[in-house]
Amino acid sequence: MIKPRTPPGVMELLPRDQVAFQRMLDTIRLTFERFGFLPVETPVFELSDVLLTKSGGETERQVYFVQSTGALEKAADGAVDGGSRPALPELALRFDLTVPLARYVAEHEHELAFPFRRYQMQRVYRGERAQRGRFREFYQCDIDVIGKDALSPRHDAEIPAVIAAVFDALDIGEFTIWLNHRKLLRGFFEGQGIEGDRQLAVLRELDKLDKRGEDAVRATLVGEGFGLSADVADRLLAFSRVRSTGHDDALAKLDALGAGTPLFEEGRGELRELLGRLKAMGVAESRYAINLSIARGLDYYTGMVYETTLDAYPQIGSICSGGRYDNLASHYTKSKLPGVGISIGLTRLFFQLRDAGLVAGADSSVDALVTLLDDAGLDHALALSQALRAAGLNVETQLEPRKLAKQLQYADRAGIRFVVIRGGDEAARSAVAVKDLRRGEQFEVIEAELAQRLLEARQEP
Amino acid sequence: MIKPRTPPGVMELLPRDQVAFQRMLDTIRLTFERFGFLPVETPVFELSDVLLTKSGGETERQVYFVQSTGALEKAADGAVDGGSRPALPELALRFDLTVPLARYVAEHEHELAFPFRRYQMQRVYRGERAQRGRFREFYQCDIDVIGKDALSPRHDAEIPAVIAAVFDALDIGEFTIWLNHRKLLRGFFEGQGIEGDRQLAVLRELDKLDKRGEDAVRATLVGEGFGLSADVADRLLAFSRVRSTGHDDALAKLDALGAGTPLFEEGRGELRELLGRLKAMGVAESRYAINLSIARGLDYYTGMVYETTLDAYPQIGSICSGGRYDNLASHYTKSKLPGVGISIGLTRLFFQLRDAGLVAGADSSVDALVTLLDDAGLDHALALSQALRAAGLNVETQLEPRKLAKQLQYADRAGIRFVVIRGGDEAARSAVAVKDLRRGEQFEVIEAELAQRLLEARQEP
Repeated sequence: MIKPRTPPGVMELLPRDQVAFQRMLDTIRLTFERFGFLPVETPVFELSDVLLTKSGGETERQVYFVQSTGALEKAADGAVDGGSRPALPELALRFDLTVPLARYVAEHEHELAFPFRRYQMQRVYRGERAQRGRFREFYQCDIDVIGKDALSPRHDAEIPAVIAAVFDALDIGEFTIWLNHRKLLRGFFEGQGIEGDRQLAVLRELDKLDKRGEDAVRATLVGEGFGLSADVADRLLAFSRVRSTGHDDALAKLDALGAGTPLFEEGRGELRELLGRLKAMGVAESRYAINLSIARGLDYYTGMVYETTLDAYPQIGSICSGGRYDNLASHYTKSKLPGVGISIGLTRLFFQLRDAGLVAGADSSVDALVTLLDDAGLDHALALSQALRAAGLNVETQLEPRKLAKQLQYADRAGIRFVVIRGGDEAARSAVAVKDLRRGEQFEVIEAELAQRLLEARQEP
Repeated sequence: MIKPRTPPGVMELLPRDQVAFQRMLDTIRLTFERFGFLPVETPVFELSDVLLTKSGGETERQVYFVQSTGALEKAADGAVDGGSRPALPELALRFDLTVPLARYVAEHEHELAFPFRRYQMQRVYRGERAQRGRFREFYQCDIDVIGKDALSPRHDAEIPAVIAAVFDALDIGEFTIWLNHRKLLRGFFEGQGIEGDRQLAVLRELDKLDKRGEDAVRATLVGEGFGLSADVADRLLAFSRVRSTGHDDALAKLDALGAGTPLFEEGRGELRELLGRLKAMGVAESRYAINLSIARGLDYYTGMVYETTLDAYPQIGSICSGGRYDNLASHYTKSKLPGVGISIGLTRLFFQLRDAGLVAGADSSVDALVTLLDDAGLDHALALSQALRAAGLNVETQLEPRKLAKQLQYADRAGIRFVVIRGGDEAARSAVAVKDLRRGEQFEVIEAELAQRLLEARQEP
């Protein structure tokens, strides 16, 4: 007898939680499609040489390699016979959806229409250290818009509108989409006489503000390593503190930054324009704000950057992040493919929301249980169930008669809302009784009207 | 520069095919949920000792093992240093959804309600020899009903009703669900004096009827190896030929088999009862037939067995198969868990349907392209797009003005049906022009009525 168990670092759900998770997936997908994004799915494994062209160090150490039994035996034979270290296995599990997207776009470049708008919602794999809340298998839900040669910054403005629509639809509380622009950031640094690699070092230091506090960071910036003047350090800290509240405030805070280098003005111009587009799209101004401390993927993003936090749960950190990049697939094609995209790490988000009590096990996906009181009623119960299904209801039929109390208990535990009962009295009237377990109410309805009545009742809280 | 390419044996789709595939997945899921099945997802990898407890030989040779970079290095070090053969890697990719289901039900036995009705639609992995139409990664779409200690045969009757609903909804042509019962089969063999392992051998021979033809099989059965009498061989062949056309014919053909052993009568009784239930559920009688040559998974199924074929494409073989089994998880728990289930191999089915021209690249998931004629119209186009999305339409906005012909060409190539154009004339009337690219028609509509009009038009062919 083997103990049934999952490997560490995966999230496996009981059915009612799986229903809740599935509803989140469905909501995200629906919203991505509303904005005209097209579905893409890629294989869970890629050829190792294709997958690992770009990543090094930390990421490569977390890669899962895949070998068939045959390949494994061959590698073992080689090692035993020759004592030589076997080559890397041929296949590896994807660790994100960005590298597969780059490979996909480069491979199918001549079959795709650009700008190419794709969404992808699949699991990715990382050999993380096992730890509560860290996952080795987790869902990413990504959208990206990829241009060929060029991509108008106007696409960057749609991204926060998609994020806002997703989290409005998920209905998990108030949230804020934080906006910044790498050119504004880099231009500001230039203006302070900080250039090249020093920008990165200073950014890394500023990124520690939350953890180390302002005094400690200021001390480091004016200390030996950086050697910045107190004035410059203060200006950097003041810049990092800039956050807007409301649309007009965002524009005012951008104005208040004063004149800057051409790069700075380019970034500010794009941010201003993006704010205008968000207003045109009717995105609620409580949903977005500029936050000049946001940096993200220092070596990757080149324009707009986005983070999203839940207002009531800042400790969860960013639940949806991304930005603009210059070239998606330089390892696979000579074509220049600039893009903008975001990613939601849904497994981790679901885990955190459940921890915070924000998603409880949902009601069952089953709307109604058609009960069975005696064998004579079986064919009628089957036919009634089929009629309800044809009308669009999810129905389970009780196939063996049990005490009604048992059947009600089963429905209650399973999270099934409506229980349909056809006793002798009701049958004589061509009617059925319905128990609404959520409301604790019971009503009688003519059988011919049952489906319509349940469809309506399902809409009510 | 690395050549972007996928590993052999996977099916990766361009967006319009992916839309078609996604619609099939959605349809199957919707139908599974209509019948009260609950969603389950399991991790792509299982612990090797858990996954491989049951399978041996052929299946085990096809398993993909998974190792993180660290584990791989450790194994290589061990092999190089000690020259010893490394142990099996800790993780392996699932090769079906049945073993993970067994593990899931055994692991969560005390948290599940029985009969447990679950559906699972995920990819599985097999190290198949690379060959056209053979996949190393493919979707399975499974339903199973699992009982604790016992499970009424009445559940077996729901299964063909689900299959019929799925393939009716998929709308890929006429199909037939073939029914047989292992007890009828075994009982009949008993009646002919064929017992134990000889039953299996004879079944294997009968299974070659299509390939070898009746004369060759008869010759083998009366030949030295089997030594059956000519009478018995003829009765076996006649039995194998039994196929019904229509409900009453199925009952008549069962009656015409004559009296048999108790096991035979038990199987016949269950088949008869199942036919009655199908009628009660309103399953069209053209959708099911008895076929006494169906055997399937000889060592696994113990009661009803099902296969499904497309009437116009018998060469595709069974597109949905399954049956009743006695005990799901004997390797993981002492509890007896009988069940009944079916599986659709969707990747292979989609591949075959596409080959047969039965699924073409679908229309895009994008309903409408909102065009842009000049920069001044941008904010209006964005707001209009958002209004259409709020009404439930999937909309892409053209964000940079291009020649209208170019925008129409883009929509046409992308498979987007409706193109919304707001020229100066229309704008003066608060109207827009809509091109319906599918119908090759154009109409004008007041902007405030556009969403409603498109929602209606989308329903029309």
